[in-house]
Amino acid sequence: MIRANKHFKKLQSSYLFYNIAMRVNAFQKANPTAKIIRLGIGDVTQPLPPVCIEAFHKAADEQSAPETFRGYGPSEGYAFLREVVAGIDFRSRGANIDPDEIFISDGSKCDCGNFQELFSTDSIAAIPDPVYPVYLDTNVMAGRTGVYKEGRYEGVVYLPCTAENRFIPSLPDQTVDLIYLCSPNNPTGSVMDRENLNRWVSFARESQALILFDAAYADFIREDDLPRSIFEIEGAQEVAVEFRSFSKMAGFTGTRCAYTVVPKACMAYDENGDAISVRDLWMRRQTTKFNGVSYPVQRAAEAAFSERGRDQVRGLTDYYLENAKIVRMAMAELGFETAGGVNSPYIWINTGQDDWSFFDRLLQKASVVTTPGSGFGNNGVGFIRISAFNSRENVITAMERISQIA
Amino acid sequence: MIRANKHFKKLQSSYLFYNIAMRVNAFQKANPTAKIIRLGIGDVTQPLPPVCIEAFHKAADEQSAPETFRGYGPSEGYAFLREVVAGIDFRSRGANIDPDEIFISDGSKCDCGNFQELFSTDSIAAIPDPVYPVYLDTNVMAGRTGVYKEGRYEGVVYLPCTAENRFIPSLPDQTVDLIYLCSPNNPTGSVMDRENLNRWVSFARESQALILFDAAYADFIREDDLPRSIFEIEGAQEVAVEFRSFSKMAGFTGTRCAYTVVPKACMAYDENGDAISVRDLWMRRQTTKFNGVSYPVQRAAEAAFSERGRDQVRGLTDYYLENAKIVRMAMAELGFETAGGVNSPYIWINTGQDDWSFFDRLLQKASVVTTPGSGFGNNGVGFIRISAFNSRENVITAMERISQIA
Repeated sequence: MIRANKHFKKLQSSYLFYNIAMRVNAFQKANPTAKIIRLGIGDVTQPLPPVCIEAFHKAADEQSAPETFRGYGPSEGYAFLREVVAGIDFRSRGANIDPDEIFISDGSKCDCGNFQELFSTDSIAAIPDPVYPVYLDTNVMAGRTGVYKEGRYEGVVYLPCTAENRFIPSLPDQTVDLIYLCSPNNPTGSVMDRENLNRWVSFARESQALILFDAAYADFIREDDLPRSIFEIEGAQEVAVEFRSFSKMAGFTGTRCAYTVVPKACMAYDENGDAISVRDLWMRRQTTKFNGVSYPVQRAAEAAFSERGRDQVRGLTDYYLENAKIVRMAMAELGFETAGGVNSPYIWINTGQDDWSFFDRLLQKASVVTTPGSGFGNNGVGFIRISAFNSRENVITAMERISQIA
Repeated sequence: MIRANKHFKKLQSSYLFYNIAMRVNAFQKANPTAKIIRLGIGDVTQPLPPVCIEAFHKAADEQSAPETFRGYGPSEGYAFLREVVAGIDFRSRGANIDPDEIFISDGSKCDCGNFQELFSTDSIAAIPDPVYPVYLDTNVMAGRTGVYKEGRYEGVVYLPCTAENRFIPSLPDQTVDLIYLCSPNNPTGSVMDRENLNRWVSFARESQALILFDAAYADFIREDDLPRSIFEIEGAQEVAVEFRSFSKMAGFTGTRCAYTVVPKACMAYDENGDAISVRDLWMRRQTTKFNGVSYPVQRAAEAAFSERGRDQVRGLTDYYLENAKIVRMAMAELGFETAGGVNSPYIWINTGQDDWSFFDRLLQKASVVTTPGSGFGNNGVGFIRISAFNSRENVITAMERISQIA
């Protein structure tokens, strides 16, 4: 008899964004003329940069002739893309990352979700609260947690992120094995500075823990003294892996491309305490369960690193950062405490009330979709996340509508 | 201290195709002028059908304008693609599959590899021998096997496929939970007929087991009385899931698109024996760990189902089937026993000697890459797989070269 993975049953509810989509669909069905503005899921709205479109066309044409056709590519991605990534995103900022430490994938969600497979199921995970739900849910599915009780899974070390610590997770008072950090943070918009990161890298080195550093929003950082990569911190290569994405920086949410950096120096340990290369484990996982990213998509991603591409990407992120400023100012003017929205496309708002009720009110009265903070963890109760990913016009309209009902 | 997943250590060697690639690269480096012909990994060589290229361009243009731009799509794929798949690949052949039972993905390798996550780690897997290594390796990584001894992992029920059973797996003499079947088979090229499938479906129904049916090569079936889908068999929807791919039928190995069919009637069981929808489990897995396939790629895949697209796809598969015939005839003429190569792009050849030696000899003396059968399991020892995926000219040249050294 085929038995289901019993850990799936521990999951508390449908995946947050799926849940929101259901409510929005129901509202749209009941109100077919309502012009819904989506500041919820954090999906980009601006088209792909022109350089990416050109590269896409060129690569599609290559796929049309036997001489230039490409079949299976390397699981870990084409060298042409890994090289520009290593050069521009890391070496130019003093982080000594080689192209063969870059693994191209179809999404950071996949990589963040799959990476935990490389480790023992009795590893203790430290997970910020609130945070992107994928870290927690994938550890639950893998059996790395106990049951759910009073808003918490047993066996997980939660790292509270509140106004008191300016939404930057503090070190836990126990040893942990697998540490999830996200900066610029989803959902709070907070950004870890050099000192914060140094503290975590030292902690991980002392306890031989591993940091899974999600930097999907790194390209929104504008302040030069803020690190964009954890590998700008000395010693991080031995204890950290980093997830980066083209989704938000270059509009790739529907086009799908991301990458994960796994330095050769990064180690896990076997039952005797002997070191095992995490990069070798990930290579084995990826060559066995993944077949690489679509060739035209990799060419489009490469184009984002050209000189014109970087200008265009900068234009896109600037555009969303200006939206973020508009949201932040408008909500502050209405008297809400806000965080984020600087060096980050997310604004984290203390609603002072039940967040799902506030979400429903904004949906029903203003036709504006946001994300209820409790979907990100206990410490998100009472907050909502507003995303800056929409057109300028829609962001302004949404803020006007919210002002009228607030 | 971060501990590695101890099960990775049980894996016997590098992933087969990665291993072959290393040998081929070494040979090419040592013999830079050698014109290597690759009949190994089973990668297509003919360009994408023109309809797919047109659709690709059109979708790339849509991504260039805010009015038509698409961000995140549904994790499970766009309705436009799921609908044509359900209609043309299933309903037109009498298999009652709904679009919402179709999950679009970036590859069958990913889906075959990930699907086992839904089930208890103490489920007993039945795996053909020889077979595509991904089924076995992913179960090893998940801890569903014991250690490796004398060519076998403990805890796996191997289903021998030999000349005696015409390479069609026979029912095991014990109960099993998770059954992997592959037809048309990789690597043997054998195809299961209605009677074979009926027997397996009845077996699964009696023991409440689940069949993971890999039909990535279904479009190579030319004989009308052979089922292309397991869902052409009555009762299969309750006990089977099916993997299909655009890779080989439409040249998508580098473009990446596939789909998995998970019928609503398909059930797993909890510890009390209560039924749990496998489709719900997969939906939860996919919405949590996957973000859908690139939009232009889904449009290209959709185009393959248009009337022109179906003609062009038929042209492609006909082309490779003619290659398969050439290989089959040439190897038979040299006195080798062969299987497959009819309704299948793979030819399975009894070399009468050590298969890695035979592989090396073909590489060194004929500059032809094949796949050693032992990489697919104990019962593949002494066999090689030749793939029909190459240009007509290269296939003919390869057979001439092999004839000269045989």
